[in-house]
Amino acid sequence: MEFQINKEFINFLTELIAENNTEQIVEVFKDVHYADLAELFEEIEPELAIAIIKIVDTDKTSDAIVELDEDVREEILKGMSSQEIANEVNELESDDAADMISELSDQQMHEVISQIEDIEHAKDIVDLLRYDEDTAGGLMGKELIKVKENWTCMQSIKEMRLQAEDIEKVYTVYVVDDDDVLKGRLSLKSLLTTSTKTPVKDVYSPSITSVKANEKGDQVARIMQKYDLVVVAVVDEMGRLVGQISVDDIIDLIKDEAEKDYQLASGLTDDVEADASILELTKARLPWLILGLFGSLCAAAIMGSFDSHLLRDYSELFFFTPLIAAVGGNVGVQSSAIIVQGLANDNIKGSLWNRLFKEIGLSLINGTVLGCLVIAYGFIQDSDILLSITIASSLIVVIIMAALIGTFVPLILDKRGIDPALATGPFITTSNDILGIFIYFTIAKIILPI
Amino acid sequence: MEFQINKEFINFLTELIAENNTEQIVEVFKDVHYADLAELFEEIEPELAIAIIKIVDTDKTSDAIVELDEDVREEILKGMSSQEIANEVNELESDDAADMISELSDQQMHEVISQIEDIEHAKDIVDLLRYDEDTAGGLMGKELIKVKENWTCMQSIKEMRLQAEDIEKVYTVYVVDDDDVLKGRLSLKSLLTTSTKTPVKDVYSPSITSVKANEKGDQVARIMQKYDLVVVAVVDEMGRLVGQISVDDIIDLIKDEAEKDYQLASGLTDDVEADASILELTKARLPWLILGLFGSLCAAAIMGSFDSHLLRDYSELFFFTPLIAAVGGNVGVQSSAIIVQGLANDNIKGSLWNRLFKEIGLSLINGTVLGCLVIAYGFIQDSDILLSITIASSLIVVIIMAALIGTFVPLILDKRGIDPALATGPFITTSNDILGIFIYFTIAKIILPI
Repeated sequence: MEFQINKEFINFLTELIAENNTEQIVEVFKDVHYADLAELFEEIEPELAIAIIKIVDTDKTSDAIVELDEDVREEILKGMSSQEIANEVNELESDDAADMISELSDQQMHEVISQIEDIEHAKDIVDLLRYDEDTAGGLMGKELIKVKENWTCMQSIKEMRLQAEDIEKVYTVYVVDDDDVLKGRLSLKSLLTTSTKTPVKDVYSPSITSVKANEKGDQVARIMQKYDLVVVAVVDEMGRLVGQISVDDIIDLIKDEAEKDYQLASGLTDDVEADASILELTKARLPWLILGLFGSLCAAAIMGSFDSHLLRDYSELFFFTPLIAAVGGNVGVQSSAIIVQGLANDNIKGSLWNRLFKEIGLSLINGTVLGCLVIAYGFIQDSDILLSITIASSLIVVIIMAALIGTFVPLILDKRGIDPALATGPFITTSNDILGIFIYFTIAKIILPI
Repeated sequence: MEFQINKEFINFLTELIAENNTEQIVEVFKDVHYADLAELFEEIEPELAIAIIKIVDTDKTSDAIVELDEDVREEILKGMSSQEIANEVNELESDDAADMISELSDQQMHEVISQIEDIEHAKDIVDLLRYDEDTAGGLMGKELIKVKENWTCMQSIKEMRLQAEDIEKVYTVYVVDDDDVLKGRLSLKSLLTTSTKTPVKDVYSPSITSVKANEKGDQVARIMQKYDLVVVAVVDEMGRLVGQISVDDIIDLIKDEAEKDYQLASGLTDDVEADASILELTKARLPWLILGLFGSLCAAAIMGSFDSHLLRDYSELFFFTPLIAAVGGNVGVQSSAIIVQGLANDNIKGSLWNRLFKEIGLSLINGTVLGCLVIAYGFIQDSDILLSITIASSLIVVIIMAALIGTFVPLILDKRGIDPALATGPFITTSNDILGIFIYFTIAKIILPI
């Protein structure tokens, strides 16, 4: 199925290119899927990739280029002339073409578009470039098959044959009225199961899900998932069919959403990949580390501010500040993760009060268990019982506090239209460190005799 | 599009059920999508849901039941007779039917199956129940459309009409030989664009992706994503077509994968939802908290083990243990998150040595920046310069150490076939706490004059 990329193969290709053995190269890639070709391009030097692109059938290379990581694609397109890019774009479906062109410089974009043979295709692309890439319009493709409601099935099949010529996959046959307003869909099934003379309007199914062209992308993803849609029709303000979005266009979007939350929770600002440059990685990571640093410096200052008797008489107290900080951090991260995922899959139900009581109940259980463990540990170490009690009771308070912050900060951010995932990871751990330390020493001052 | 669920509506429904006003209820749900019906069932009492299920068209209610969260579905099925469940199952595609039945008790499963009218359907379901739910066989549905390679297009269309009768969505027309071995697919396009007399073998496309029935689910998901497949054919060891998996069956799988990693990184064992019971939440959260607790207790013990002079003469040292722990934790989480996501999207490339050097370089940059900030802070507080140097240099060492652990532990786990996500979150933060504190005080002993 999938083909193996290894040093030998790459060297072999390099030689073929060197001796400019085109037939051989065409032969090598005859049965290679564009997705595999894309993987190859990610591994090899841009120059080599470009040489291959110039030789292998554009029908395959164009799709491969679309599959590439943005930075790799940029590298490769840099080495190609506008004419060569235009040839690739010619083979692409309008949505992929638009995505690819939108990455070019305005001037080159203009050159490429002007060199696309098929004028209709060029028009579609220019049309798509108008939409914000994060909307249904930005996700949709123009290629689709539609029939008019007052055609017969026979006539429809004829028309569909023509339309199908330049379409890769046919998911749905749309039914529109004379003004192109979307009426419904003609299922292949009913097309197969009804006589060819019946008019479309008698057999088409009016139940069809459509989204407005300016609908947000994540909203489209949510709808397609909820209604198990393979494609969704896109209509303009007047309900006219303007394009369709197929599920493979949104799968990445769904994944990215889930991964973005995870990255934010892990203290990574940008969407960085494992093999990003050191600079990119620093940009993504350093800000959060600095945030954490200042948080801990505050914590240090707080400790310094408590009177030195505490420090002198109960120095052991300080052995457990990392404990307080760690537990507070862990609880905060747990609570916020549950809420953020709940919001993402919108299954946050019930009143805030219930949630409040639940979190407190939960925290009391966890807190008590951990507290007992600490006191047990204290006995084993036969350390001052008051110290153990201080630590245990602080743990309970800190856990409750951390759970509440972890639960409600994301909820509040979400209510205000801010990405709740921002309130996970470093932010939550840092604030919990500070508060936790403060609570710990306050309780110590109350319980421990000075 | 989507309909609103609110108190009024639910009360309204309760009344209708009370006065057993069936026509009215049928009317209410006439144009409601099953996904919306499912959302309603999640909100209302099981009794009410069951009452509605008994009245509304099974064609719609069956799909709604499939959409439900497992626990809600269990509640509802408990209140239904085997006969009633069988009626719902009758309407489902074989894969959904099998999933639903597999949740029943063996005895009830047996009753339900024996009461399914359509014997063929029952056979398909029993057949599917044999597969492990996490394999291609467990994901696939039996419903598909296939034509024999030596039929004509005309004959194919006739046969397809018959087969289409009991199929909801038609994605692909499969081409098989007389032994049912998968040969390729007949695209709707070529069906529409070639004369009806041509034999299938002349027009079908042999390029088709298929997976073995025992292929792991996540592998299927990876393949479908890589090759942008809307459906993938499932074949047995002899290459015979046994079913197909459509993309909406694997979208959840893709999401769950991404979310699972996030949950593990956040210290949540099971897949818990925001509105899980306190007990479930405790089960998911407490183990990690205890792990963290013991880690911190070790850290405390380590601090205690260092000689008391350090403690007496440089008590300020202890203000910064949370700092060391926090930074170590954050760096570890960042590194592990990048690796785990990299592994999930398999884009971990290049040699381990490069990665090693990169992580060290990155850590030196981050460490130096944070170190300078600490020294600056020391000046402002005009605290002992040696103390600042101790903290700063410890930070650099701890960051390098944390980055290496965060990077290589997941990689090693993955190599050994263990889920790398286990090495994120609490595990990484805890181990980094301990090591960090140890490094910190060791460096302190070296640098600070006692």
